[in-house]
Amino acid sequence: MRAARGPSDVGELRVDAARLHSRLAELGEIGSTGDGGCARLALTDEDRAGRDLVVTWMRDLGLDVRVDGIGNVVAVRPGREPGPPVMCGSHIDTVATGGVFDGNLGVLAGLEVLETLERAGRSTRRPIAVAFFTDEEGSRFSPDMLGSLVYAGGMAAEEAYDLVGIDGKRLGDELARIGYLGTTPCPGEAPYAYVELHIEQGPVLEHHGDVIGAVTGVQGISWQEVTFEGQFNHAGTTPMSYRHDAGYAAAAVAVAARQIAEELGGHQVATVGALEVRPGLVNVVAGRARCTVDLRNIDEEVLEEAERRMAAEIDRLAGSEGLTVARRGLARFEPVAFDGRVVDLVEATAREHGHRVRRLPSGAGHDAQMLARMCPAGMVFVPSVGGVSHNPAERTLPEHVEAGANVLLDVLCRLADEDPAS
Amino acid sequence: MRAARGPSDVGELRVDAARLHSRLAELGEIGSTGDGGCARLALTDEDRAGRDLVVTWMRDLGLDVRVDGIGNVVAVRPGREPGPPVMCGSHIDTVATGGVFDGNLGVLAGLEVLETLERAGRSTRRPIAVAFFTDEEGSRFSPDMLGSLVYAGGMAAEEAYDLVGIDGKRLGDELARIGYLGTTPCPGEAPYAYVELHIEQGPVLEHHGDVIGAVTGVQGISWQEVTFEGQFNHAGTTPMSYRHDAGYAAAAVAVAARQIAEELGGHQVATVGALEVRPGLVNVVAGRARCTVDLRNIDEEVLEEAERRMAAEIDRLAGSEGLTVARRGLARFEPVAFDGRVVDLVEATAREHGHRVRRLPSGAGHDAQMLARMCPAGMVFVPSVGGVSHNPAERTLPEHVEAGANVLLDVLCRLADEDPAS
Repeated sequence: MRAARGPSDVGELRVDAARLHSRLAELGEIGSTGDGGCARLALTDEDRAGRDLVVTWMRDLGLDVRVDGIGNVVAVRPGREPGPPVMCGSHIDTVATGGVFDGNLGVLAGLEVLETLERAGRSTRRPIAVAFFTDEEGSRFSPDMLGSLVYAGGMAAEEAYDLVGIDGKRLGDELARIGYLGTTPCPGEAPYAYVELHIEQGPVLEHHGDVIGAVTGVQGISWQEVTFEGQFNHAGTTPMSYRHDAGYAAAAVAVAARQIAEELGGHQVATVGALEVRPGLVNVVAGRARCTVDLRNIDEEVLEEAERRMAAEIDRLAGSEGLTVARRGLARFEPVAFDGRVVDLVEATAREHGHRVRRLPSGAGHDAQMLARMCPAGMVFVPSVGGVSHNPAERTLPEHVEAGANVLLDVLCRLADEDPAS
Repeated sequence: MRAARGPSDVGELRVDAARLHSRLAELGEIGSTGDGGCARLALTDEDRAGRDLVVTWMRDLGLDVRVDGIGNVVAVRPGREPGPPVMCGSHIDTVATGGVFDGNLGVLAGLEVLETLERAGRSTRRPIAVAFFTDEEGSRFSPDMLGSLVYAGGMAAEEAYDLVGIDGKRLGDELARIGYLGTTPCPGEAPYAYVELHIEQGPVLEHHGDVIGAVTGVQGISWQEVTFEGQFNHAGTTPMSYRHDAGYAAAAVAVAARQIAEELGGHQVATVGALEVRPGLVNVVAGRARCTVDLRNIDEEVLEEAERRMAAEIDRLAGSEGLTVARRGLARFEPVAFDGRVVDLVEATAREHGHRVRRLPSGAGHDAQMLARMCPAGMVFVPSVGGVSHNPAERTLPEHVEAGANVLLDVLCRLADEDPAS
């Protein structure tokens, strides 16, 4: 793979935005929650119906459709030369209160790219593939990004089969039940490159008036739960100096999280999203409190520094307040940096299309970070209206959907056509 | 009333501690929760049984027992001269998870004082009365200290009758049902003075190794509920500067409460006992949060300053975080200062008994603060083990119970015997 080429390389082909929107709407009808949203949890009947529809579209285009042992579906349009394909894709499972763009856009825009090439009779040197990966959301079966994790060799399919969902069902059984226990082996073949179009699910692009995000990587995540035990006391009769106030300590953790993020600056985010105090009465000093801490950074060293500062603050609070403290790690992922040349190519192509572009990290996890383990990978973001996602109100403007699909088209063609020597 | 007299005035009489403990235990059996605790909510069958027992003891002593229109019971031992009695007392209703000392001690110690005088043939110039007031706890019918409030003329009995309990029952109906809708008019006769023995319900006396508290007054109380509305956001994709984090603001209120109490010092206490964030998920910035603020001080001006600082901090947080804020007042009582001469008399008497004494304010409300509206009033505190109250584990050491009852005995006698000119 070589560096991005100049403006002369921008193709003249453009996707059919109406067709893409029509497919987004049709897929969104399956599992519709009636309020503009969608509920197609992984390996449910709704997921099967969504899969069947997309596979039908893939087959209608004459693509070679393969289902692997974890239910990932890869549809390939051959190139002029053999070899691994340039792959795009995403997921079509949703959260329980999902929108119609999250994941679906990346899959259907990839399909649209292939249909555009097919109708134009445009060949590429390398094959181009579009994939959808199983259980990206993790809403029914944990962990999330499961299908792409197995595809990339991060977990054996056999191990994944024994996962139990929130409804008590076994993943392997559900995969077979809906007819998507395929025969293509896992891990999958390493693509030549992987590019995923996705909605931002955050407010940054919209806020800056940018149309395309060239995603530099995915933030590392550190989740923990902190439980303080102190002493229940009467809020009137217990002087301040006698207190062992677990609620105060949990609240101070939330304030410290904000301060740590501000001190570290950059892309550091820190959130206390859950905070419970017991007994939770106006006139009782809380004897017990629980909170969660979510720290994220694109830079592993800074993320570790945030963790150190938070741990020190928790220790300090427990000590000064006379509390016991219990910590439980909920999740820890290192940051993923996307391939610099793919990021550059996305940025350059978007500029050549005349769009305002911004390089930014992803705050959420995506299948692309799993594919990044096996090939050069990157992502294209388009703005989310109001930064809203995982919500029936999730929306991306039609002109942004179209812009993203056309950038994806040219990025894929460039990767598929580039000189093998690069 | 005149200033406390010297050591020569300390009487030789002492209460029968065994008899007092026996009565505490017998009354504690009614409504026993089986774990050392007691549940006799106001005007329930258990409250009636407790009342009947205490009234029986009062009548057995030959006292003149009167029940007023709100169910307060006042038992009088005549003096050598007519006129208003020196009154002691407290309440015998409990919270749902109450102990056997809260309230009960003040009533039964008063009864013990009268029995001690009776058995010794000791007369007093003025009558001495022991009272128990209806619904001090407010656990079934709000507000608390209801009976003493009506006794002191702060609420009409007819208004109180229409109060509805947590079980939907009307107070007036329940009062009649248990047979305690009496005929003595409300408001009641102003006593010559009122002195209430009560457990501290806090840790201060125990911590300092003091046996008797000479209570200087009751803290003023300011309760409010604060609700912030911001915006739900993804904890990964939403940079810090884009957030409208209601959970952060509520947590910062809890931290500010602590800071305000530390800055104002003295007896200022500040508590955020309830704090809820929504949706309460590890990876979602809370769009909604609610907390309570409990501020108390013995000094009204300082309490108002605490309220001002808290209001300013809430405004500042709402402004900087871009939130709407709603405040709801839950309660507001001004501090009550007890009569300086009664406080001095309690302190002097306890010292003459050889006890370590501490002057301190009460952090909780008591019937004495209502009686303080109509006569010189004060309180005697005895230590609570571990500061625990409103709990089956509530306990006061036997030697402290005895010490408190004997101080009460001499304080009542001194007030009952003092020169009319004072």
